[in-house]
Amino acid sequence: MPTVLTTPDSLNRTTAETWMRHFQQRLCAQLEAADGGTTFQTDAWLHEGGGSGLSKVLQHGAVLEKGGVNFSAVWGEMSERAARTLLMPNPAYFATGVSVVLHPRSPMVPIAHMNVRYFEAGNGEAWFGGGIDVTPIYVNEAQARWFHQQLYAVCRRHHPAYYPRFKQWADEYFYLPHRQETRGIGGIFFDRLTVGHDGSFEELFAFVQDVGDAFGPIYTELMHQNRALPYGEREQQWQRIRRGRYAEFNLAIDRGTKFGLETGGRTESILMSLPPQVEWHYNQQPEAGSPEAATLACLRKEVAWVAIQQNEYAL
Amino acid sequence: MPTVLTTPDSLNRTTAETWMRHFQQRLCAQLEAADGGTTFQTDAWLHEGGGSGLSKVLQHGAVLEKGGVNFSAVWGEMSERAARTLLMPNPAYFATGVSVVLHPRSPMVPIAHMNVRYFEAGNGEAWFGGGIDVTPIYVNEAQARWFHQQLYAVCRRHHPAYYPRFKQWADEYFYLPHRQETRGIGGIFFDRLTVGHDGSFEELFAFVQDVGDAFGPIYTELMHQNRALPYGEREQQWQRIRRGRYAEFNLAIDRGTKFGLETGGRTESILMSLPPQVEWHYNQQPEAGSPEAATLACLRKEVAWVAIQQNEYAL
Repeated sequence: MPTVLTTPDSLNRTTAETWMRHFQQRLCAQLEAADGGTTFQTDAWLHEGGGSGLSKVLQHGAVLEKGGVNFSAVWGEMSERAARTLLMPNPAYFATGVSVVLHPRSPMVPIAHMNVRYFEAGNGEAWFGGGIDVTPIYVNEAQARWFHQQLYAVCRRHHPAYYPRFKQWADEYFYLPHRQETRGIGGIFFDRLTVGHDGSFEELFAFVQDVGDAFGPIYTELMHQNRALPYGEREQQWQRIRRGRYAEFNLAIDRGTKFGLETGGRTESILMSLPPQVEWHYNQQPEAGSPEAATLACLRKEVAWVAIQQNEYAL
Repeated sequence: MPTVLTTPDSLNRTTAETWMRHFQQRLCAQLEAADGGTTFQTDAWLHEGGGSGLSKVLQHGAVLEKGGVNFSAVWGEMSERAARTLLMPNPAYFATGVSVVLHPRSPMVPIAHMNVRYFEAGNGEAWFGGGIDVTPIYVNEAQARWFHQQLYAVCRRHHPAYYPRFKQWADEYFYLPHRQETRGIGGIFFDRLTVGHDGSFEELFAFVQDVGDAFGPIYTELMHQNRALPYGEREQQWQRIRRGRYAEFNLAIDRGTKFGLETGGRTESILMSLPPQVEWHYNQQPEAGSPEAATLACLRKEVAWVAIQQNEYAL
């Protein structure tokens, strides 16, 4: 198992990479404790261009049917084509991050996604990205407000504009144009928070660490609140259909998946994000007035889940 | 239901469109007769830029679990970005074609795909494309040879180089680089057979008609030969896993899907190609020596399913 750190071309790389490694461990321990029924299996892999990854995948848990918490710190030179597609300022890159997707067994527990990442490009630019979003199979509006409130609280500790900006960014990013649906109830998403432009390395990294550390407590609370709710075949079928939308997003739209596959990432680690079972029916539409239709009605941009204090935002 | 033909900017458009419309009807009748357990449901739709389509979808048949035979004749102007992505010589386009994907219920009957299409671009270029390929869940090598032999026979009536060239093209096109697997045992694939350059409109259209007309007899024979073979849960699970690869290809790689979604095609018609049920497991590998491993071993480029007569190819 490769345990070497990268040769640090910058102290920031080592700092980010070390935190990411420890964060993965911590988060997996939290999720194992909350699930109570299984443990993560670990696969280490080497990246062709340079660097390595540690994939932690869990299957058949008490709450989580399938989930992955992936760490990687990789570098190399991507093709000109890939650099263009991925809007990279330069084909040389260093990237480290932790990426999480959790598919609970019960349709009453939302699917969760979290990612924190640090990039350096060959031209000297460095930036952070990340976010947290959830995809309920059935939207519980009170929980959706609570979830967004937690993200708002994390963001406002760092910058008053962060939550409104990153909430809107999540609405735009986690969107399936061909379905005219958001993937779920969103959350926060941010990319290219550039060192020097958007804050110092220390300031931006502190925010990203806070986002990462917020995820475990928020999601284990959602697991706890919903795991015992009853459901039947109807709810499971709706879950498989909604998981189909999740697969459509990850395979056809998500830039992170494209980046991973284009830069020679480990396919099984990248595609651990795909749901365990999926169904696609032709022209399936929920009945008017049904709980499924109520959920669909929430899957749109610009739902104001949190009342933002205007005087604060204006700062 | 819109039944108007397009305003013919060229006689060739009308000729191609009219044949495509009738071909869809004929093929659906053949498939209904072969299935024996259900009929196609028809949905007509209008295209925003201009033109229309007729989607014929079948679900819960005796052999076919889900399948679609889509006709469309559409035109418009695509965005500069879409034109670049799709390598179009010009953003203005006319496109007519029939596109087929059939997902049989039994894992012993291969998934089938067929497409024939005619394009005109705003700069005056016109071309044909198309192909037939199958994706067996379990490869039967004798049948694979028979299948390729049929395509070889169709191709050689038109040009001695067609089969070897279009067989190789299918190997390249229906390939999942992140899995290092072909989607199935291939078949033939061709694009941009350009009027004036690769033959006259009449010559190229005659070939495309032959490809289209070959599909019904070939695939109904495969349905007939395999529909009564026994299978159990093991084979069905392998089917759901292989269908996952099919979904990965169609959502992440296929240019036809991208073209449809980028140019505002009807989502339900385009994504009828997605399998009814799919499973994604982490790191699933078939046991060495199993029938599943034998199938995987066939899913690579350059398998010579047909012995090509060298003197003929050299013509």
